[in-house]
Amino acid sequence: MATPSVKPTPLSPPLKDELDIVIPTIRNLDFLEMWRPFFEQYHLIIVQDGDPSKTIRVPDGFDYELYNRNDINRILGPKASCISFKDSACRCFGYLISKKKYIFTIDDDCFVAKDPSGNDINALQQHIKNLLTPSTPHFFNTLYDPYREGADFVRGYPFSLREGAPTAVSHGLWLNIPDYDAPTQLVKPLERNTRFVDAVMTIPKGTLFPMCGMNLAFDRELIGPAMYFGLMGDGQPIGRYDDMWAGWCMKVICDHLGLGVKTGLPYIWHSKASNPFVNLKKEYNGIFWQEKAIPFFQSVSLPKDCTTVQQCYLTLANEVKAKLGELDPYFVKLADAMVTWIEAWDEVNSPGKKPAKLPNGTSK
Amino acid sequence: MATPSVKPTPLSPPLKDELDIVIPTIRNLDFLEMWRPFFEQYHLIIVQDGDPSKTIRVPDGFDYELYNRNDINRILGPKASCISFKDSACRCFGYLISKKKYIFTIDDDCFVAKDPSGNDINALQQHIKNLLTPSTPHFFNTLYDPYREGADFVRGYPFSLREGAPTAVSHGLWLNIPDYDAPTQLVKPLERNTRFVDAVMTIPKGTLFPMCGMNLAFDRELIGPAMYFGLMGDGQPIGRYDDMWAGWCMKVICDHLGLGVKTGLPYIWHSKASNPFVNLKKEYNGIFWQEKAIPFFQSVSLPKDCTTVQQCYLTLANEVKAKLGELDPYFVKLADAMVTWIEAWDEVNSPGKKPAKLPNGTSK
Repeated sequence: MATPSVKPTPLSPPLKDELDIVIPTIRNLDFLEMWRPFFEQYHLIIVQDGDPSKTIRVPDGFDYELYNRNDINRILGPKASCISFKDSACRCFGYLISKKKYIFTIDDDCFVAKDPSGNDINALQQHIKNLLTPSTPHFFNTLYDPYREGADFVRGYPFSLREGAPTAVSHGLWLNIPDYDAPTQLVKPLERNTRFVDAVMTIPKGTLFPMCGMNLAFDRELIGPAMYFGLMGDGQPIGRYDDMWAGWCMKVICDHLGLGVKTGLPYIWHSKASNPFVNLKKEYNGIFWQEKAIPFFQSVSLPKDCTTVQQCYLTLANEVKAKLGELDPYFVKLADAMVTWIEAWDEVNSPGKKPAKLPNGTSK
Repeated sequence: MATPSVKPTPLSPPLKDELDIVIPTIRNLDFLEMWRPFFEQYHLIIVQDGDPSKTIRVPDGFDYELYNRNDINRILGPKASCISFKDSACRCFGYLISKKKYIFTIDDDCFVAKDPSGNDINALQQHIKNLLTPSTPHFFNTLYDPYREGADFVRGYPFSLREGAPTAVSHGLWLNIPDYDAPTQLVKPLERNTRFVDAVMTIPKGTLFPMCGMNLAFDRELIGPAMYFGLMGDGQPIGRYDDMWAGWCMKVICDHLGLGVKTGLPYIWHSKASNPFVNLKKEYNGIFWQEKAIPFFQSVSLPKDCTTVQQCYLTLANEVKAKLGELDPYFVKLADAMVTWIEAWDEVNSPGKKPAKLPNGTSK
């Protein structure tokens, strides 16, 4: 018997209308060609850094909006001062302007990696899995993610904790060029990451980690206002600490609010090492300052009446000014920028707010 | 030019004279045949559980000492009451009687696993690597063990923490039968662990985990007296929580003393699932009690003047009695046994102590 001819319904990829892909860039986005099968149905927010008169070419067929420095200044007015210039920290403007629940952000020198069987890794799909399943920040599970197929909680894991916590952040990793600081790059110029570790795990409550912004996803509704990438680059005494800063602030707030942070899969292929000499110039203050900043974040505690991300973040800004301001005046400026960031976030994201005038791009 | 004929010096395996392998058992140790290439040059301490009149056959060629219940009673006298009977918790007698710096303990239903390339995994060798390299309990490294070949600390990892902490414990994992509790066994009777996760990581300071005694190594000089496996089995209202108890106590003490605990590689092949109905009977009190015991261990703090494992352990025993004694009289008895254990440990391990009369076996 012949089956009747039925036109298959095209399947929407997961969270198609609930996720924006944020890409900071200074160049043509040819790297998107390799990601086409995985990204083409999603909306992109491109944050153009550097000279706004330059034209960034986006491959045909992608749905995107693009913001350059003029757009940022026009939309945020004086509050645009909190958005870094000439540093990939500018990407956080994309988080602020998005109207979606989820954000995935990726660098333009990151390509599709292969799993040990030789299959292309759909990094976005894995991030979505990570974000849509709970985290386990309150007790460590030795078989890693207990919500993954073929795994579970092991003997001795308290039953009352098996529902887990909502996942706010999914931190993905990198094959090929590892995310090393300038001194390590200088000492090990040829080291490549070839180890595929088939695991996703929750970073326990109370533990800080170095969050890299290269391959990162998060729930914007749960944690968005904490994902500020700081003041870096042009006119600032520091670079390459944008994602670290966001990671420390975010983790302290997730711990306070009972939210989870995962790390591990998915891998992307990081194609090229940045110049270690240039990096050293950007990093040297950070290398020094992190020795004080990390103990600060390890010991800071937020009061119980901070129940929103914004409240937590403003309290943290106060603490930064009070405790790290002594280390260098930069931290006073940064603390002020943290406050400005929250003001800008609330202004752009307030419920009655009209959508900002659309920038360049093919957006609806 | 002909090279002179030199007889090669036979290579000793690592830590050959500094490590004992402790095996609790009630049956013939045929499983050792599979481990022969990896264990044969090491010394074994076999702790025979159950009927002491039964003869346990050990394959030829292994160097071992064997203790049955009569030996334990003879050596410890009245203090033998702290060593469990009819439960694999009795293995901790082997830790106490050892004179070596390192212990590896393994269950007799654990066989050699294969890595993804099909090679036999030398579990002991990996444990030794884990123990002889530092841990990173104070900050999370996203590329896992930074001391492993091909890995390092990532950008944003404080330089002051890169020397790490001494490693006290190496917790290995299991392919095939996962270490599930009875309820999970009942719900997922066919689940097998087939995922080889190629990672070793430090469990962060302040985080507890379910330590399994099946495939475990530790530095006896650093943490030995904390590795008491509690009162389980015959005459006790609980079983299958021996390793969990040791894990909670050990982790709190390692955190206090600045020692590291690793989990991950090596895998062993766990051959057979124990009976979930029997397990449920042993576990049900523990499943209930752990909901109180874990928050206790998460919040207990040891005073600064506790600087030895023994001091920490005795303080913890006091706290257990004071805080968990209300939960059930069992914890009062357990707290007393913890004190007896330390007395027994110190008696057997005091510097002037003559070696105990040798038991059965082929030991020197």
